[in-house]
Amino acid sequence: MLVDGVAMRTIWPCGHGAVKVIDQTKLPHELVTVELRTLDDAAHAIRDMVVRGAPLIGATAAYGVALALKADPGDSSLAHALRVLTATRPTAVNLRAALDRCRREIGRHMPVDRVPVAWRLAAAICDEDVSINRAIGQRGLDLLRAAQKGDKPVNVLTHCNAGWLATVDIGTATAPIYAAHDAGVPVHVWVDETRPRNQGAGLTAWELGRHGVPHTVIVDNAGGHLMQHGLVDLCIVGTDRTTATGDVANKIGTYLKALAAHDNGVPFYVALPSPTIDWTLSDGVGEIPIEQRDPAEVTQLSGITRDGRVTTIRITPDGTPAANYAFDVTPARLVTGLLTERGLCDASREGLLGLFPERRHATAAA
Amino acid sequence: MLVDGVAMRTIWPCGHGAVKVIDQTKLPHELVTVELRTLDDAAHAIRDMVVRGAPLIGATAAYGVALALKADPGDSSLAHALRVLTATRPTAVNLRAALDRCRREIGRHMPVDRVPVAWRLAAAICDEDVSINRAIGQRGLDLLRAAQKGDKPVNVLTHCNAGWLATVDIGTATAPIYAAHDAGVPVHVWVDETRPRNQGAGLTAWELGRHGVPHTVIVDNAGGHLMQHGLVDLCIVGTDRTTATGDVANKIGTYLKALAAHDNGVPFYVALPSPTIDWTLSDGVGEIPIEQRDPAEVTQLSGITRDGRVTTIRITPDGTPAANYAFDVTPARLVTGLLTERGLCDASREGLLGLFPERRHATAAA
Repeated sequence: MLVDGVAMRTIWPCGHGAVKVIDQTKLPHELVTVELRTLDDAAHAIRDMVVRGAPLIGATAAYGVALALKADPGDSSLAHALRVLTATRPTAVNLRAALDRCRREIGRHMPVDRVPVAWRLAAAICDEDVSINRAIGQRGLDLLRAAQKGDKPVNVLTHCNAGWLATVDIGTATAPIYAAHDAGVPVHVWVDETRPRNQGAGLTAWELGRHGVPHTVIVDNAGGHLMQHGLVDLCIVGTDRTTATGDVANKIGTYLKALAAHDNGVPFYVALPSPTIDWTLSDGVGEIPIEQRDPAEVTQLSGITRDGRVTTIRITPDGTPAANYAFDVTPARLVTGLLTERGLCDASREGLLGLFPERRHATAAA
Repeated sequence: MLVDGVAMRTIWPCGHGAVKVIDQTKLPHELVTVELRTLDDAAHAIRDMVVRGAPLIGATAAYGVALALKADPGDSSLAHALRVLTATRPTAVNLRAALDRCRREIGRHMPVDRVPVAWRLAAAICDEDVSINRAIGQRGLDLLRAAQKGDKPVNVLTHCNAGWLATVDIGTATAPIYAAHDAGVPVHVWVDETRPRNQGAGLTAWELGRHGVPHTVIVDNAGGHLMQHGLVDLCIVGTDRTTATGDVANKIGTYLKALAAHDNGVPFYVALPSPTIDWTLSDGVGEIPIEQRDPAEVTQLSGITRDGRVTTIRITPDGTPAANYAFDVTPARLVTGLLTERGLCDASREGLLGLFPERRHATAAA
């Protein structure tokens, strides 16, 4: 997308066997890019959320394999890279999918041939992500057009950042928003700030602002009130992992918004690139492991002071215990529809298999 | 309650025609008391949330009337004080109830007699609040005992601060927690941080910590996940205003927790001093005006830096629009029970009238 008039992606090869990414820990206060030169650089970028968002994590992992093989293309180096990168984030299914693909498509080549294969594969994974998101946007555009009342802006609520910063470009939940905005359909976005890491307040607000999409930041507590009062036409969120039955793991708090949407008859859509579907799972609440992160992410926040210094503050009394569950699971019964690159379907096994019939055998066997 | 071994209330007359309060904008990083000497001091304390919480606002307003009359006990001074104090916070019904009582009980005296009447009335309002909260605690203790599984701690989730800091002493939602803890029933409290003003992370965590009650701070997004996984035995929240039909206005986000509790079969109780019941209302969502506060409360936060300076930071991009709805309404259908100083009742007109039969005529006429 455009940033102050310049087209950017979130990750790109920079021409001397290295990769550049936007350092998302510095946003929204500074736009800084960092160079990844080694496997450890890539693993660190994923683990410490320099890059985040399921599709971008997958793309970064694929480049991480290429960086590892550049140093040593042998079997043990490949196996080590896959192991290190798999361990960086336990919940994201794209990470595993990207790494499985690297194992299959790179591992069958002789070590001497692997480096160019790995770079081409990482680039292909990036381009496929962009194509998927473009398709989600076009299909979601119809939903936004249908939700418009007269000439009024369509009010969309979103949680976390499933924007272009979470992907290689365009975003998933934001894809219909950008498609509508660019097509002249007036859109206004309620942006959940998304504690504890404030990806909404920091990242979604930043990217919508840079692209000129009207938006308003709200605390995560506010969405229910807005829906009770008819101020939300539809919700669109992303997902880190979706079961074959349509249960959706996404940023902590998504489940609460889905409950409020259901209680108020507001459509609740999940934008879903098909690589985030985990066809092996059928019970999201029971089967998806939920990552617990550092409690300091709850008790401490970073931001910018009036005189322009990026500073970290603690909001709790000294020594207060905190818990930090990173995701929750929204049961399929609360999801109005899954919006994929192949179209919209019910959040159910039959709905998903209708769009992805080639999986019918795989899930029957599971 | 005790603070480092010293018994404190949140408001008390300090002996030379002035009143002292704890400055809650300084908590949890500093315990500072401020002296209120004039009507304007009292109005400022309420408006800028030096004091907050429905019962404490009512008590402070009553002392505000006394301070105004100390300067001028005449009719126009009394009317002016009532007008200024009524305008400080539009949602809290206790404020109106306390001021109506001042109008009735002080107004019928000659100006020359009003000052001691006003001081006695303010002190009586404070003592009544403490008695009410003590009664809520004793009645709520039975609920916590019943929720205990074997020897395990009872896990209570609460939102915002309906603790002793929100009242004159003991608190409303915290009253059963303190009663259980003091009676030797093991309790653990999940403390919602409660954005945007972080009354949970700052105030509830502070007061539970000072009293020695085990607790864990969580982001507002986390409660649904905890309830899905059986980690919450019951929810107890306070309320700023309750309709005669049992709809509950409380801090923004309460509705989302009630939805999650309902979806997971977790009991959801509202601790309810009867002065917060607005017997004139029957439709909370439609009739209770929801205060909108400064958007800067959403985009900026205060806390303490590693080197001990209290600092304000901005978490959004510069110039990002934000909205700040202070309360939401939880419909009675999501409330398991209302816990009042007269006992527990259904969240319904019949339930409330069963405990407050003297209101039967008043609501029939409304």
